[in-house]
Amino acid sequence: MTTFNDIDRKAINTIRCLSADGVAKANSGHPGAPMGLAPLAHVIFNNFLNFNPKNPNWFNRDRFVLSNGHGVMLHYVLLHLFGYDSMKMDDLKQFRQLGSRSPGHPEAETDGIEVTTGPLGQGIANAVGLAIAQANIAATFNKPGFAVSDNFTYSIFGDGCMMEGVASEAMSLAGHLQLGNLISFYDDNHITIDGDINVAFTENVLARLEAYGWHTIWVEDGDNDLEGIAKAIEEAKKVTDKPSCIKITTTIGFGSKLAGTHSVHGAPLKADDIAQLKEQFGLDPTKSFDVEQDVYDLYHAKAAKGASAEESWNDLFSKYSAEYPELATELQRRIKGELPQGWEKHLPTYTPADPAIASRKLSEILIGKVFDALPELIGGSADLTGSNLTRYSKSVDFQPPSTGLGDYSGRYIRYGVREHGMGAIMNGISAYGGFIPYSGTFLNFVSYAAGAVRLSALSEHQVIWVATHDSIGLGEDGPTHQPIETLAHFRALPNMQVWRPADGNETSAAYYKSLTNKHTPSIIALSRQNLPQLEGSSIEKASKGGYTLVEVENAQVIIVATGSEVGIAVDAAKVLAEQNIKANIVSLPDWFTFDQQSEEYKLSVLPDNIPILSVEVMTTNGWQKYSHQQFGINRFGASGPAPEVYKFFEFTPEGIAKRAAATIEFYKGTPVRSPLKTAF
Amino acid sequence: MTTFNDIDRKAINTIRCLSADGVAKANSGHPGAPMGLAPLAHVIFNNFLNFNPKNPNWFNRDRFVLSNGHGVMLHYVLLHLFGYDSMKMDDLKQFRQLGSRSPGHPEAETDGIEVTTGPLGQGIANAVGLAIAQANIAATFNKPGFAVSDNFTYSIFGDGCMMEGVASEAMSLAGHLQLGNLISFYDDNHITIDGDINVAFTENVLARLEAYGWHTIWVEDGDNDLEGIAKAIEEAKKVTDKPSCIKITTTIGFGSKLAGTHSVHGAPLKADDIAQLKEQFGLDPTKSFDVEQDVYDLYHAKAAKGASAEESWNDLFSKYSAEYPELATELQRRIKGELPQGWEKHLPTYTPADPAIASRKLSEILIGKVFDALPELIGGSADLTGSNLTRYSKSVDFQPPSTGLGDYSGRYIRYGVREHGMGAIMNGISAYGGFIPYSGTFLNFVSYAAGAVRLSALSEHQVIWVATHDSIGLGEDGPTHQPIETLAHFRALPNMQVWRPADGNETSAAYYKSLTNKHTPSIIALSRQNLPQLEGSSIEKASKGGYTLVEVENAQVIIVATGSEVGIAVDAAKVLAEQNIKANIVSLPDWFTFDQQSEEYKLSVLPDNIPILSVEVMTTNGWQKYSHQQFGINRFGASGPAPEVYKFFEFTPEGIAKRAAATIEFYKGTPVRSPLKTAF
Ligand SMILES: [Ca+2]
Ligand SMILES: [Ca+2]
Repeated sequence: MTTFNDIDRKAINTIRCLSADGVAKANSGHPGAPMGLAPLAHVIFNNFLNFNPKNPNWFNRDRFVLSNGHGVMLHYVLLHLFGYDSMKMDDLKQFRQLGSRSPGHPEAETDGIEVTTGPLGQGIANAVGLAIAQANIAATFNKPGFAVSDNFTYSIFGDGCMMEGVASEAMSLAGHLQLGNLISFYDDNHITIDGDINVAFTENVLARLEAYGWHTIWVEDGDNDLEGIAKAIEEAKKVTDKPSCIKITTTIGFGSKLAGTHSVHGAPLKADDIAQLKEQFGLDPTKSFDVEQDVYDLYHAKAAKGASAEESWNDLFSKYSAEYPELATELQRRIKGELPQGWEKHLPTYTPADPAIASRKLSEILIGKVFDALPELIGGSADLTGSNLTRYSKSVDFQPPSTGLGDYSGRYIRYGVREHGMGAIMNGISAYGGFIPYSGTFLNFVSYAAGAVRLSALSEHQVIWVATHDSIGLGEDGPTHQPIETLAHFRALPNMQVWRPADGNETSAAYYKSLTNKHTPSIIALSRQNLPQLEGSSIEKASKGGYTLVEVENAQVIIVATGSEVGIAVDAAKVLAEQNIKANIVSLPDWFTFDQQSEEYKLSVLPDNIPILSVEVMTTNGWQKYSHQQFGINRFGASGPAPEVYKFFEFTPEGIAKRAAATIEFYKGTPVRSPLKTAF
Repeated sequence: MTTFNDIDRKAINTIRCLSADGVAKANSGHPGAPMGLAPLAHVIFNNFLNFNPKNPNWFNRDRFVLSNGHGVMLHYVLLHLFGYDSMKMDDLKQFRQLGSRSPGHPEAETDGIEVTTGPLGQGIANAVGLAIAQANIAATFNKPGFAVSDNFTYSIFGDGCMMEGVASEAMSLAGHLQLGNLISFYDDNHITIDGDINVAFTENVLARLEAYGWHTIWVEDGDNDLEGIAKAIEEAKKVTDKPSCIKITTTIGFGSKLAGTHSVHGAPLKADDIAQLKEQFGLDPTKSFDVEQDVYDLYHAKAAKGASAEESWNDLFSKYSAEYPELATELQRRIKGELPQGWEKHLPTYTPADPAIASRKLSEILIGKVFDALPELIGGSADLTGSNLTRYSKSVDFQPPSTGLGDYSGRYIRYGVREHGMGAIMNGISAYGGFIPYSGTFLNFVSYAAGAVRLSALSEHQVIWVATHDSIGLGEDGPTHQPIETLAHFRALPNMQVWRPADGNETSAAYYKSLTNKHTPSIIALSRQNLPQLEGSSIEKASKGGYTLVEVENAQVIIVATGSEVGIAVDAAKVLAEQNIKANIVSLPDWFTFDQQSEEYKLSVLPDNIPILSVEVMTTNGWQKYSHQQFGINRFGASGPAPEVYKFFEFTPEGIAKRAAATIEFYKGTPVRSPLKTAF
């Protein structure tokens, strides 16, 4: 049994006071959660968490996620006390200041922070992803006597997280997957921003988690009962076939005059309150940002233990390398994030002689060809496997072995109808390292996961959305399923690839860039309907994000299009040719990648002195960046067979040709500047 | 006790065969759920649901929501059999065809369909909104002896809905709110698209709902036990302080050779399967779309009962009108959706002499002034009341009276941290009629509710999002909370107002248009920081969506901006004036409204022959529609005090002036056409 004494309590109170100091100096932030959670955090970090502050990226470290990210000062204080280089005392003093390493919510770029949290519900869902990743690595690489992967994932979440749907989705799946390596803590402090949780949140949290298949424990006095907390964690570690949730009843802002009220949730403590706090805890009320040496000593001793734990692991890994050289090399490669030599040779290429194929099907073919070559791929779908075509026929499902449906070495996850949870879980898998997660849903329902997609981009997670049924071309399912605004939305997100390939070679390019761009997530929008293999496309050209597909001399207009409209635009050029109008066709499958090309290249594709018409069967918003005139759909779609819907909206060779002619007419006699040219 | 006999079973089998016929004729759709759910639907519609097919909008009708909207053929068949004018036999034959009244998923525009569903999880959350609305109407208008509102809301949902986070959020809140008027049915058919639910969904659904505070019942043989279904509904109706969920174990595609497999989920039955189905059920296998007269007779008798139920209610309402004339008039007004005469006089107006005020605070002042004048307003916040400032100080919370925290006549809902659920619930409240729901969250987290916002726009629900903390101006919370892509996303959504008012008068205009536009939802983006009251703004001008705020003679450039940047742009014009550069300032608070103005008016605001620079502290995507050059932020934001963050990104009078000068320079000697002018 773990025991505690005065130095533990002093350390805990130091955490509380440092947190209060940090928020007060910033004059902004959330002191209540750090003060209430200090005992729990102390026990987790000092008694259980395996980590080495000198190497925050040690692969087999335990992961810690603060899902209630607004309490981040707690985490910064811990990083500081344990001696992370990323968090000096000056960094604590720079909390929430421009350019500091201690922004208002935890961002993964700071060493020691595993994932960016703050948007509620995301962190606990990321934790599920971290646990999935560990289970898969262990099942793939561990050998008798060589537990090269055995880390746990610990996560604290609050009432806010538990109310968010994304958490519900991820936690339900975690229960199904029997993730015994996930230990979470529900900060039961009875307070949210609106006041007592009685105003909105009266469900029985543990009963709900039990319904999801979780193991649950309750520590009634989270303010003082350190032994109880330790005992609960020991128990949770022993339950290997269920994720655990330990409910810790705490007092928000413990020690403050306003303890237990929502006044300490999101506003700094007043100076006199901080003074009485320190006095109450036997600390010097005249000092700010003060840590006594014995507290540093305690935590640095633990840090040293962590360093030696890593050393032991390195020894183990050396022996493992001798015994299992191929596995060891492979694991090292994956940890480094390097793709296997020559993998890209498996990318399929096509010629115009090949048949028309739906791009979702092209994606399936591609996945089938690269899946064995890229063991870091871990796929899935939000219950649309047969529609998204995301599953390689020989892949094994990631499932608890007891289900008989797969095992933990499987690389295909049945996410269920849980798009938002899926997105957040992919972020967690990506954050673990050694994986490139991809998953399918209909493009329209990527929007359900907008919160997670945004964090993929912000945190630079390499995750791939296989977004099929990408337009009105899905037909009969109708406007509830037909994206109009979706691409515009995600194209407006910084650091986001949004591919819409037009044929087989472009689909290969989309995957090539998505698989090689380590710090940028991707959405690959794919058609339900068949698309012809285009004359002039190639992986190399499409990998530039945009290129001239059809070029004629003295062209009078450029038609720029994406995906299923490119082939129709090619046919429109033929209609125009019959009218003696010359048109070039540009395919622009990914704006993000195109924007990164040289000015010279971009202007060669979209030059001066020629009007440009964009064609895409959804909103025209944003297309003005690359065109002078836009043909799109600025209304909701329609339910009907796809060819009829396309005809209704005039996305036919004739409909496009008519608008191209009008565009030429409109600019007749007017000098035209490339839309890429800007004043500043 | 309700009893059933052969005609009930014949009617049920007729539903099954008609559903199979409809999907087969369309050669697209989902026959499995209608065939499995026919017994339940029969019992609900024929034995319990109060409705009058001759007046689908009778106010006190029971509401029915098919949350698993892909099974919509079931609902269309029922509408037809009960004699709705909106669903003739020919409409069934036109299932999923372009322009038909029977699109692929239920759309509210078809009479008899309460809400648009299909995107999973939304319908059951809408049902929670419908139940909230009823409880509020009843608590507000019912009097002893006059239960003018006593309808129930019935909703069927499937595994897919239960996996979606939006359902979790709404159902947790429904439990807290003790909505005894909500009776839902969980179609436990063990099948989703990926196959058996064992692959992804093994939670205990009823235990989870009990944890939320629901009453639960299980009918084990949903294929045959009509009496059991009826008994369960009777029991549920008696439980008045909890929402009920009746789990019905069914066989998907009952009667088909492929019954019980996911093959009947989303693909038409083959002709021979349909033939054996009809034979099995004693119906004529040579006939399609066939209904025998005794089945019509059965359902038309029930329809007649519904008509007389409405008549009785009309009588009751006449007597109520005599006894409580004011209440009756008020309820009638609200049902019609007419605002009270003169309400708009309560909208505050401002002059430049008034102090600078954050627009979230301007919103609070406005809500305080109109709340009593507009009893149809029902507000709320996703646990950010103190930040969104959405609560009128004198309002009562909508709470179960037993909590002591409010009562059901209250018009302020504590939604908890449940943005997506909140959006879907607002859609339900709006669909009920008699309400204009509004709710607050940070603008960035409206994205969590993207699925529901999209359906607001598609279904033309008048709901209002009070979206505060609308930019990098929120400061220290940092990039996880600072919107960049959010406005671009929602501006790309058809039928969506996206307001970003610059001062007090514009805030009043935003609300004026949001409150008077009955068929278009709104997002009102509001600042955390103070904004000056602008010279030249007015409710009337801003109500056009865009207008010239500052006009000088011979202007060389127009700066078009929104919200917090308008005031800075005005100061930029002063900086430019010092350099002898003349600039006009256009404020464009809502693109949607501006787009609806006359060409002439729009061109007077954004005319030919003058370069236009847009200024907004987020993505520039989309601004090309209204400007030639764009100043924005095409990266994520930064954590720091707001003024420093603005300075960092150069959104200062000087930073804007510099770019305005560059814009003039860029177009020198080039003819400039208004960006509003298009080739087609
Ligand atoms: Ca809390
Ligand atoms: Ca099901």
